[in-house]
Amino acid sequence: MTYCVGLRLKDGLVMLADTRTNAGVDNIATFKKSHLFQIDGDRMICAMTSGNLAITQAVINLLSDGFESAFSGEQESLFTVTSMFRAAELAGEAVRRVYQRDGDALEQQDMTFSCGLLIGGQIKGRGMRLFQVYSAGNFIEATEDTPFLQIGEHKYGKPILDRACNFETGLNDGVKLSLISMDSTLRSNLTVGMPLDLVVYKKDQDGPPLCRRIEEDDVYFQTIRDSWSNALRDAYRAIPVADWLS
Amino acid sequence: MTYCVGLRLKDGLVMLADTRTNAGVDNIATFKKSHLFQIDGDRMICAMTSGNLAITQAVINLLSDGFESAFSGEQESLFTVTSMFRAAELAGEAVRRVYQRDGDALEQQDMTFSCGLLIGGQIKGRGMRLFQVYSAGNFIEATEDTPFLQIGEHKYGKPILDRACNFETGLNDGVKLSLISMDSTLRSNLTVGMPLDLVVYKKDQDGPPLCRRIEEDDVYFQTIRDSWSNALRDAYRAIPVADWLS
Repeated sequence: MTYCVGLRLKDGLVMLADTRTNAGVDNIATFKKSHLFQIDGDRMICAMTSGNLAITQAVINLLSDGFESAFSGEQESLFTVTSMFRAAELAGEAVRRVYQRDGDALEQQDMTFSCGLLIGGQIKGRGMRLFQVYSAGNFIEATEDTPFLQIGEHKYGKPILDRACNFETGLNDGVKLSLISMDSTLRSNLTVGMPLDLVVYKKDQDGPPLCRRIEEDDVYFQTIRDSWSNALRDAYRAIPVADWLS
Repeated sequence: MTYCVGLRLKDGLVMLADTRTNAGVDNIATFKKSHLFQIDGDRMICAMTSGNLAITQAVINLLSDGFESAFSGEQESLFTVTSMFRAAELAGEAVRRVYQRDGDALEQQDMTFSCGLLIGGQIKGRGMRLFQVYSAGNFIEATEDTPFLQIGEHKYGKPILDRACNFETGLNDGVKLSLISMDSTLRSNLTVGMPLDLVVYKKDQDGPPLCRRIEEDDVYFQTIRDSWSNALRDAYRAIPVADWLS
Protein backbone atom coordinates (compact mmCIF):
# COMPACT_ATOMS: atom_id res chain seq x y z
CA MET A 1 0.00 0.00 0.00
CA THR A 2 0.90 3.66 -0.17
CA TYR A 3 -0.23 6.98 1.13
CA CYS A 4 0.47 10.19 -0.76
CA VAL A 5 -1.22 13.51 -0.16
CA GLY A 6 -0.98 16.76 -2.09
CA LEU A 7 -2.22 20.18 -0.98
CA ARG A 8 -2.59 22.97 -3.49
CA LEU A 9 -2.79 26.02 -1.27
CA LYS A 10 -2.98 29.72 -2.08
CA ASP A 11 0.75 30.15 -1.44
CA GLY A 12 2.13 26.90 -2.81
CA LEU A 13 2.14 23.14 -2.96
CA VAL A 14 2.81 20.59 -0.23
CA MET A 15 3.24 16.99 -1.33
CA LEU A 16 4.07 14.07 0.92
CA ALA A 17 4.63 10.37 0.18
CA ASP A 18 5.56 7.33 2.19
CA THR A 19 8.11 4.86 0.78
CA ARG A 20 6.84 1.40 1.66
CA THR A 21 6.02 -1.20 -0.94
CA ASN A 22 4.86 -4.67 -0.14
CA ALA A 23 3.97 -7.93 -1.81
CA GLY A 24 2.23 -9.49 1.17
CA VAL A 25 3.03 -8.39 4.72
CA ASP A 26 6.08 -10.66 4.75
CA ASN A 27 7.74 -8.95 1.81
CA ILE A 28 8.23 -5.24 2.31
CA ALA A 29 10.75 -2.85 0.85
CA THR A 30 11.53 0.86 0.54
CA PHE A 31 11.01 2.57 -2.82
CA LYS A 32 10.84 6.27 -3.55
CA LYS A 33 7.36 7.25 -4.76
CA SER A 34 8.12 10.94 -5.18
CA HIS A 35 9.69 11.99 -8.49
CA LEU A 36 10.86 15.46 -9.44
CA PHE A 37 10.95 16.87 -12.97
CA GLN A 38 12.58 20.19 -12.41
CA ILE A 39 14.42 22.74 -14.53
CA ASP A 40 15.53 25.91 -12.72
CA GLY A 41 13.64 28.94 -13.95
CA ASP A 42 11.42 26.82 -16.19
CA ARG A 43 9.40 24.20 -14.33
CA MET A 44 8.85 22.22 -11.17
CA ILE A 45 6.71 19.13 -11.55
CA CYS A 46 6.41 16.52 -8.83
CA ALA A 47 4.80 13.14 -9.52
CA MET A 48 3.87 10.83 -6.65
CA THR A 49 2.69 7.30 -7.32
CA SER A 50 0.61 4.54 -5.77
CA GLY A 51 -0.32 1.08 -6.95
CA ASN A 52 1.56 -1.82 -8.49
CA LEU A 53 5.27 -0.92 -8.43
CA ALA A 54 6.04 -2.47 -11.83
CA ILE A 55 3.34 -0.28 -13.36
CA THR A 56 4.27 2.94 -11.56
CA GLN A 57 7.99 2.55 -12.35
CA ALA A 58 7.14 2.02 -16.02
CA VAL A 59 4.90 5.11 -16.02
CA ILE A 60 7.58 7.29 -14.38
CA ASN A 61 10.11 5.97 -16.86
CA LEU A 62 7.90 6.97 -19.80
CA LEU A 63 7.27 10.40 -18.30
CA SER A 64 10.95 10.96 -17.71
CA ASP A 65 12.42 9.57 -20.95
CA GLY A 66 9.48 10.74 -23.05
CA PHE A 67 7.42 8.91 -25.65
CA GLU A 68 5.54 9.72 -28.82
CA SER A 69 2.12 10.90 -27.69
CA ALA A 70 -0.81 9.48 -29.66
CA PHE A 71 -2.64 12.79 -29.06
CA SER A 72 0.02 15.22 -30.23
CA GLY A 73 2.14 12.98 -32.45
CA GLU A 74 5.17 14.55 -30.72
CA GLN A 75 7.88 13.06 -28.50
CA GLU A 76 6.95 14.44 -25.08
CA SER A 77 8.04 14.12 -21.46
CA LEU A 78 7.36 16.00 -18.21
CA PHE A 79 10.50 18.00 -19.06
CA THR A 80 8.94 19.27 -22.30
CA VAL A 81 5.18 19.66 -21.73
CA THR A 82 4.07 23.28 -21.93
CA SER A 83 1.29 23.21 -19.30
CA MET A 84 0.34 21.34 -16.16
CA PHE A 85 -2.88 20.23 -17.83
CA ARG A 86 -0.78 18.66 -20.58
CA ALA A 87 1.41 17.07 -17.87
CA ALA A 88 -1.64 15.33 -16.39
CA GLU A 89 -2.85 14.32 -19.85
CA LEU A 90 0.57 12.86 -20.69
CA ALA A 91 0.65 10.98 -17.37
CA GLY A 92 -2.76 9.51 -18.22
CA GLU A 93 -1.50 8.49 -21.64
CA ALA A 94 1.56 6.84 -20.05
CA VAL A 95 -0.71 4.86 -17.72
CA ARG A 96 -2.76 3.68 -20.72
CA ARG A 97 0.42 2.65 -22.57
CA VAL A 98 1.48 0.45 -19.68
CA TYR A 99 -2.06 -0.95 -19.48
CA GLN A 100 -1.86 -1.90 -23.16
CA ARG A 101 1.43 -3.66 -22.49
CA ASP A 102 0.62 -5.35 -19.15
CA GLY A 103 -3.16 -5.27 -18.64
CA ASP A 104 -4.07 -8.63 -20.18
CA ALA A 105 -1.15 -10.49 -18.63
CA LEU A 106 -1.98 -9.10 -15.18
CA GLU A 107 -5.61 -10.13 -15.58
CA GLN A 108 -4.52 -13.65 -16.50
CA GLN A 109 -2.79 -13.76 -13.09
CA ASP A 110 -5.90 -12.35 -11.38
CA MET A 111 -4.06 -9.15 -10.59
CA THR A 112 -5.69 -5.74 -10.75
CA PHE A 113 -4.14 -3.05 -12.89
CA SER A 114 -3.71 -0.38 -10.20
CA CYS A 115 -1.92 2.89 -10.66
CA GLY A 116 -2.59 6.31 -9.17
CA LEU A 117 -0.59 9.50 -9.52
CA LEU A 118 -0.52 12.96 -8.01
CA ILE A 119 0.96 15.45 -10.46
CA GLY A 120 1.61 18.87 -8.99
CA GLY A 121 3.67 21.82 -10.09
CA GLN A 122 4.06 24.92 -12.16
CA ILE A 123 5.56 25.83 -15.51
CA LYS A 124 6.98 29.34 -15.93
CA GLY A 125 4.28 31.88 -16.72
CA ARG A 126 1.46 29.39 -16.09
CA GLY A 127 -0.66 28.55 -13.06
CA MET A 128 0.33 26.22 -10.23
CA ARG A 129 -1.87 23.12 -10.40
CA LEU A 130 -2.38 19.72 -8.81
CA PHE A 131 -3.95 16.69 -10.51
CA GLN A 132 -4.86 13.14 -9.58
CA VAL A 133 -4.56 10.56 -12.36
CA TYR A 134 -6.51 7.28 -12.09
CA SER A 135 -5.75 3.77 -13.36
CA ALA A 136 -7.89 4.47 -16.42
CA GLY A 137 -5.69 7.45 -17.29
CA ASN A 138 -8.46 9.97 -16.60
CA PHE A 139 -7.80 12.71 -14.08
CA ILE A 140 -9.24 15.37 -11.78
CA GLU A 141 -7.83 18.62 -10.44
CA ALA A 142 -7.72 20.07 -6.93
CA THR A 143 -9.79 23.25 -6.63
CA GLU A 144 -10.30 26.01 -4.08
CA ASP A 145 -13.27 24.08 -2.66
CA THR A 146 -11.26 20.90 -2.26
CA PRO A 147 -7.60 21.85 -2.21
CA PHE A 148 -6.21 18.42 -1.30
CA LEU A 149 -5.96 15.13 -3.17
CA GLN A 150 -4.94 11.74 -1.82
CA ILE A 151 -3.89 8.44 -3.38
CA GLY A 152 -3.48 5.01 -1.80
CA GLU A 153 -4.70 4.44 1.75
CA HIS A 154 -6.58 7.71 2.01
CA LYS A 155 -9.20 7.14 4.72
CA TYR A 156 -7.25 7.30 7.99
CA GLY A 157 -5.63 10.60 7.05
CA LYS A 158 -8.70 12.33 5.67
CA PRO A 159 -10.59 13.53 8.80
CA ILE A 160 -7.87 15.98 9.84
CA LEU A 161 -7.72 17.43 6.32
CA ASP A 162 -11.52 17.65 6.12
CA ARG A 163 -11.62 19.60 9.35
CA ALA A 164 -8.57 21.82 9.13
CA CYS A 165 -7.32 22.27 5.57
CA ASN A 166 -8.64 24.88 3.19
CA PHE A 167 -7.26 26.89 0.29
CA GLU A 168 -6.20 29.75 2.59
CA THR A 169 -4.15 27.48 4.87
CA GLY A 170 -0.54 28.71 4.98
CA LEU A 171 2.31 26.60 3.58
CA ASN A 172 3.88 25.91 6.99
CA ASP A 173 0.51 24.82 8.39
CA GLY A 174 0.01 22.70 5.27
CA VAL A 175 3.25 20.88 6.07
CA LYS A 176 2.02 20.19 9.62
CA LEU A 177 -1.37 18.97 8.41
CA SER A 178 0.12 16.65 5.80
CA LEU A 179 2.47 15.16 8.42
CA ILE A 180 -0.40 14.69 10.90
CA SER A 181 -2.49 13.08 8.16
CA MET A 182 0.42 10.77 7.33
CA ASP A 183 0.99 9.91 10.99
CA SER A 184 -2.65 8.85 11.40
CA THR A 185 -2.20 6.56 8.39
CA LEU A 186 1.13 5.12 9.55
CA ARG A 187 -0.41 4.18 12.88
CA SER A 188 -3.26 2.23 11.30
CA ASN A 189 -1.85 0.64 8.17
CA LEU A 190 1.40 -1.32 8.46
CA THR A 191 1.86 -1.29 4.68
CA VAL A 192 2.36 2.49 4.78
CA GLY A 193 5.82 3.19 6.20
CA MET A 194 8.71 5.51 6.91
CA PRO A 195 10.80 7.23 5.68
CA LEU A 196 8.71 9.97 4.08
CA ASP A 197 9.44 12.26 1.15
CA LEU A 198 8.20 15.82 1.49
CA VAL A 199 8.15 18.42 -1.28
CA VAL A 200 7.27 22.04 -0.51
CA TYR A 201 7.00 24.51 -3.38
CA LYS A 202 6.25 28.23 -3.07
CA LYS A 203 4.07 29.57 -5.86
CA ASP A 204 6.14 31.25 -8.63
CA GLN A 205 9.37 30.06 -6.97
CA ASP A 206 12.29 29.99 -9.41
CA GLY A 207 14.74 27.57 -7.81
CA PRO A 208 14.21 23.95 -6.75
CA PRO A 209 11.51 23.19 -4.17
CA LEU A 210 12.34 22.10 -0.64
CA CYS A 211 12.75 18.32 -0.75
CA ARG A 212 13.15 16.60 2.58
CA ARG A 213 13.46 12.95 3.44
CA ILE A 214 11.98 12.40 6.91
CA GLU A 215 13.46 9.40 8.67
CA GLU A 216 12.02 7.51 11.66
CA ASP A 217 14.16 9.56 14.09
CA ASP A 218 13.39 12.96 12.55
CA VAL A 219 13.12 15.42 15.44
CA TYR A 220 10.39 17.56 13.87
CA PHE A 221 8.22 14.57 12.97
CA GLN A 222 8.56 13.36 16.56
CA THR A 223 7.48 16.79 17.77
CA ILE A 224 4.42 16.65 15.52
CA ARG A 225 3.50 13.15 16.71
CA ASP A 226 3.86 13.98 20.39
CA SER A 227 2.26 17.44 20.34
CA TRP A 228 -0.64 16.12 18.30
CA SER A 229 -1.40 13.16 20.54
CA ASN A 230 -1.18 15.39 23.62
CA ALA A 231 -3.34 18.08 22.05
CA LEU A 232 -6.03 15.56 21.10
CA ARG A 233 -6.08 14.16 24.62
CA ASP A 234 -6.37 17.63 26.13
CA ALA A 235 -9.03 18.58 23.59
CA TYR A 236 -11.47 15.77 24.23
CA ARG A 237 -11.01 16.03 27.98
CA ALA A 238 -11.90 19.73 27.78
CA ILE A 239 -15.25 18.98 26.14
CA PRO A 240 -17.97 19.09 28.83
CA VAL A 241 -19.78 15.92 29.84
CA ALA A 242 -23.32 15.63 28.45
CA ASP A 243 -25.93 16.71 31.01
CA TRP A 244 -27.87 13.51 30.31
CA LEU A 245 -24.83 11.52 31.45
CA SER A 246 -24.03 13.16 34.77
CA MET B 1 -22.78 1.35 4.73
CA THR B 2 -22.72 1.52 8.51
CA TYR B 3 -20.47 2.59 11.30
CA CYS B 4 -20.74 1.03 14.75
CA VAL B 5 -18.15 1.28 17.49
CA GLY B 6 -17.99 -0.42 20.85
CA LEU B 7 -15.68 0.45 23.75
CA ARG B 8 -15.20 -1.98 26.58
CA LEU B 9 -13.67 0.20 29.28
CA LYS B 10 -12.73 -0.52 32.87
CA ASP B 11 -15.95 1.08 34.14
CA GLY B 12 -18.41 0.02 31.49
CA LEU B 13 -19.46 -0.25 27.88
CA VAL B 14 -20.07 2.48 25.32
CA MET B 15 -21.68 1.41 22.05
CA LEU B 16 -22.70 3.71 19.22
CA ALA B 17 -24.36 3.02 15.86
CA ASP B 18 -25.54 5.11 12.96
CA THR B 19 -28.91 4.33 11.34
CA ARG B 20 -28.41 4.75 7.60
CA THR B 21 -28.95 1.95 5.14
CA ASN B 22 -28.60 2.32 1.42
CA ALA B 23 -29.03 0.38 -1.77
CA GLY B 24 -27.11 2.76 -3.99
CA VAL B 25 -26.69 6.42 -3.08
CA ASP B 26 -30.13 7.16 -4.52
CA ASN B 27 -31.95 4.81 -2.18
CA ILE B 28 -31.30 5.55 1.48
CA ALA B 29 -33.38 4.86 4.54
CA THR B 30 -33.20 4.87 8.34
CA PHE B 31 -33.09 1.55 10.19
CA LYS B 32 -32.13 0.92 13.79
CA LYS B 33 -28.93 -1.11 13.99
CA SER B 34 -28.76 -1.21 17.78
CA HIS B 35 -30.76 -3.95 19.50
CA LEU B 36 -31.18 -4.47 23.23
CA PHE B 37 -31.75 -7.80 24.95
CA GLN B 38 -32.26 -6.74 28.51
CA ILE B 39 -33.84 -8.22 31.62
CA ASP B 40 -33.60 -6.09 34.76
CA GLY B 41 -31.33 -7.66 37.34
CA ASP B 42 -30.37 -10.47 34.98
CA ARG B 43 -28.72 -9.30 31.77
CA MET B 44 -27.94 -6.43 29.42
CA ILE B 45 -26.85 -7.46 25.95
CA CYS B 46 -26.60 -5.00 23.09
CA ALA B 47 -26.15 -6.19 19.51
CA MET B 48 -25.19 -3.72 16.77
CA THR B 49 -25.18 -4.79 13.14
CA SER B 50 -23.59 -3.93 9.81
CA GLY B 51 -23.92 -5.43 6.36
CA ASN B 52 -26.81 -6.51 4.19
CA LEU B 53 -30.03 -5.46 5.95
CA ALA B 54 -31.99 -8.58 4.99
CA ILE B 55 -29.26 -10.69 6.58
CA THR B 56 -28.85 -8.62 9.75
CA GLN B 57 -32.60 -8.42 10.35
CA ALA B 58 -32.85 -12.20 9.98
CA VAL B 59 -29.95 -12.68 12.42
CA ILE B 60 -31.46 -10.34 15.02
CA ASN B 61 -34.80 -12.12 14.62
CA LEU B 62 -33.18 -15.49 15.32
CA LEU B 63 -31.31 -14.10 18.33
CA SER B 64 -34.47 -12.56 19.73
CA ASP B 65 -37.00 -15.34 19.05
CA GLY B 66 -34.47 -18.10 19.65
CA PHE B 67 -33.64 -21.20 17.63
CA GLU B 68 -32.46 -24.71 18.28
CA SER B 69 -28.68 -24.50 18.44
CA ALA B 70 -26.82 -27.20 16.53
CA PHE B 71 -24.08 -26.98 19.22
CA SER B 72 -26.20 -27.35 22.35
CA GLY B 73 -29.31 -28.99 20.90
CA GLU B 74 -31.31 -26.50 23.01
CA GLN B 75 -33.68 -23.70 22.02
CA GLU B 76 -31.61 -20.58 22.81
CA SER B 77 -31.82 -16.83 22.42
CA LEU B 78 -29.92 -13.82 23.74
CA PHE B 79 -32.53 -13.75 26.52
CA THR B 80 -31.53 -17.25 27.68
CA VAL B 81 -27.78 -17.67 27.07
CA THR B 82 -25.84 -18.04 30.31
CA SER B 83 -22.62 -16.23 29.33
CA MET B 84 -21.46 -13.50 26.97
CA PHE B 85 -19.15 -15.98 25.27
CA ARG B 86 -22.19 -18.13 24.54
CA ALA B 87 -24.00 -15.00 23.28
CA ALA B 88 -21.24 -14.43 20.72
CA GLU B 89 -21.22 -18.10 19.76
CA LEU B 90 -25.00 -18.09 19.29
CA ALA B 91 -24.76 -14.92 17.17
CA GLY B 92 -22.17 -16.67 15.00
CA GLU B 93 -24.44 -19.67 14.64
CA ALA B 94 -27.35 -17.40 13.66
CA VAL B 95 -25.19 -15.80 10.96
CA ARG B 96 -24.33 -19.26 9.62
CA ARG B 97 -28.03 -20.24 9.58
CA VAL B 98 -28.87 -17.25 7.43
CA TYR B 99 -25.90 -18.04 5.20
CA GLN B 100 -27.24 -21.56 4.69
CA ARG B 101 -30.62 -20.10 3.74
CA ASP B 102 -29.50 -17.15 1.58
CA GLY B 103 -25.81 -17.63 0.68
CA ASP B 104 -26.24 -19.47 -2.64
CA ALA B 105 -29.07 -17.26 -3.87
CA LEU B 106 -27.07 -14.11 -3.06
CA GLU B 107 -24.07 -15.47 -4.92
CA GLN B 108 -26.24 -16.18 -7.96
CA GLN B 109 -27.05 -12.44 -7.97
CA ASP B 110 -23.35 -11.56 -7.55
CA MET B 111 -24.02 -10.23 -4.06
CA THR B 112 -21.64 -10.70 -1.18
CA PHE B 113 -22.90 -12.27 2.03
CA SER B 114 -21.93 -9.49 4.44
CA CYS B 115 -22.85 -9.36 8.08
CA GLY B 116 -20.97 -7.99 11.09
CA LEU B 117 -22.06 -7.70 14.69
CA LEU B 118 -20.86 -6.13 17.89
CA ILE B 119 -22.19 -8.03 20.89
CA GLY B 120 -21.53 -6.34 24.21
CA GLY B 121 -22.97 -6.77 27.66
CA GLN B 122 -23.01 -8.55 30.95
CA ILE B 123 -24.98 -11.38 32.52
CA LYS B 124 -25.50 -11.32 36.29
CA GLY B 125 -22.51 -12.70 38.16
CA ARG B 126 -20.36 -12.89 35.02
CA GLY B 127 -17.86 -10.54 33.39
CA MET B 128 -18.72 -7.64 31.10
CA ARG B 129 -17.52 -8.46 27.58
CA LEU B 130 -17.54 -7.17 24.02
CA PHE B 131 -17.28 -9.31 20.88
CA GLN B 132 -17.16 -8.77 17.14
CA VAL B 133 -18.78 -11.45 14.99
CA TYR B 134 -17.76 -11.79 11.33
CA SER B 135 -19.70 -12.93 8.25
CA ALA B 136 -18.27 -16.42 8.69
CA GLY B 137 -19.75 -16.60 12.19
CA ASN B 138 -16.34 -16.58 13.88
CA PHE B 139 -15.62 -13.88 16.44
CA ILE B 140 -13.01 -11.97 18.42
CA GLU B 141 -13.15 -10.20 21.78
CA ALA B 142 -12.01 -6.74 22.87
CA THR B 143 -9.17 -6.87 25.39
CA GLU B 144 -7.36 -4.46 27.70
CA ASP B 145 -4.74 -3.94 24.97
CA THR B 146 -7.35 -3.12 22.34
CA PRO B 147 -10.51 -2.09 24.16
CA PHE B 148 -12.49 -0.96 21.10
CA LEU B 149 -14.03 -2.81 18.17
CA GLN B 150 -15.54 -1.35 15.02
CA ILE B 151 -17.76 -2.67 12.25
CA GLY B 152 -18.67 -1.16 8.89
CA GLU B 153 -16.81 1.94 7.69
CA HIS B 154 -14.13 1.81 10.36
CA LYS B 155 -11.18 3.73 8.91
CA TYR B 156 -12.15 7.39 9.23
CA GLY B 157 -13.04 7.03 12.89
CA LYS B 158 -10.06 4.93 13.94
CA PRO B 159 -7.21 7.50 14.34
CA ILE B 160 -8.87 9.28 17.27
CA LEU B 161 -9.48 5.96 19.06
CA ASP B 162 -5.92 4.80 18.35
CA ARG B 163 -4.54 7.96 19.90
CA ALA B 164 -6.85 8.59 22.81
CA CYS B 165 -8.77 5.51 23.89
CA ASN B 166 -7.43 2.94 26.31
CA PHE B 167 -8.89 0.56 28.87
CA GLU B 168 -8.57 3.16 31.67
CA THR B 169 -10.53 5.81 29.76
CA GLY B 170 -13.56 6.88 31.80
CA LEU B 171 -17.12 6.23 30.62
CA ASN B 172 -17.93 9.89 29.99
CA ASP B 173 -14.74 10.34 27.99
CA GLY B 174 -15.58 7.13 26.12
CA VAL B 175 -18.89 8.69 25.09
CA LYS B 176 -17.07 11.77 23.79
CA LEU B 177 -14.50 9.68 21.89
CA SER B 178 -17.13 7.47 20.26
CA LEU B 179 -19.09 10.57 19.16
CA ILE B 180 -15.93 12.20 17.76
CA SER B 181 -15.06 8.96 15.96
CA MET B 182 -18.59 8.84 14.51
CA ASP B 183 -18.46 12.49 13.47
CA SER B 184 -15.23 11.91 11.51
CA THR B 185 -16.97 9.06 9.72
CA LEU B 186 -20.19 10.98 9.02
CA ARG B 187 -18.18 13.78 7.40
CA SER B 188 -16.41 11.46 4.98
CA ASN B 189 -18.92 8.74 4.10
CA LEU B 190 -22.39 9.81 2.98
CA THR B 191 -23.72 6.29 3.49
CA VAL B 192 -23.18 6.62 7.25
CA GLY B 193 -25.88 8.92 8.63
CA MET B 194 -27.80 10.44 11.52
CA PRO B 195 -29.61 9.83 13.82
CA LEU B 196 -27.32 7.84 16.10
CA ASP B 197 -28.12 5.28 18.77
CA LEU B 198 -25.94 5.39 21.87
CA VAL B 199 -25.88 2.79 24.63
CA VAL B 200 -23.93 3.42 27.84
CA TYR B 201 -23.74 0.66 30.43
CA LYS B 202 -21.98 0.87 33.80
CA LYS B 203 -20.26 -2.34 34.83
CA ASP B 204 -22.43 -4.42 37.23
CA GLN B 205 -25.36 -2.02 36.70
CA ASP B 206 -28.69 -3.62 37.59
CA GLY B 207 -31.23 -1.53 35.71
CA PRO B 208 -31.41 -0.73 31.99
CA PRO B 209 -28.47 1.03 30.33
CA LEU B 210 -28.67 4.60 29.14
CA CYS B 211 -30.07 4.48 25.60
CA ARG B 212 -30.10 7.74 23.73
CA ARG B 213 -31.13 8.56 20.19
CA ILE B 214 -29.05 11.48 18.96
CA GLU B 215 -30.80 13.47 16.25
CA GLU B 216 -29.22 15.92 13.80
CA ASP B 217 -30.09 18.90 16.05
CA ASP B 218 -28.86 17.32 19.30
CA VAL B 219 -27.25 20.12 21.31
CA TYR B 220 -24.53 17.97 22.86
CA PHE B 221 -23.50 16.43 19.55
CA GLN B 222 -23.27 19.96 18.09
CA THR B 223 -21.07 20.96 21.05
CA ILE B 224 -18.79 17.98 20.38
CA ARG B 225 -18.57 18.78 16.64
CA ASP B 226 -17.79 22.45 17.18
CA SER B 227 -15.40 22.10 20.12
CA TRP B 228 -13.55 19.33 18.35
CA SER B 229 -13.06 21.20 15.08
CA ASN B 230 -11.92 24.30 16.99
CA ALA B 231 -9.59 22.31 19.21
CA LEU B 232 -7.95 20.62 16.20
CA ARG B 233 -7.42 23.95 14.50
CA ASP B 234 -5.88 25.44 17.64
CA ALA B 235 -3.77 22.33 18.16
CA TYR B 236 -2.06 22.22 14.79
CA ARG B 237 -1.52 25.97 14.80
CA ALA B 238 0.24 25.67 18.16
CA ILE B 239 2.78 23.18 16.81
CA PRO B 240 6.00 25.06 15.99
CA VAL B 241 7.14 25.46 12.37
CA ALA B 242 10.03 23.19 11.39
CA ASP B 243 13.37 25.02 11.52
CA TRP B 244 14.17 23.72 8.04
CA LEU B 245 11.10 25.57 6.74
CA SER B 246 11.57 29.02 8.22
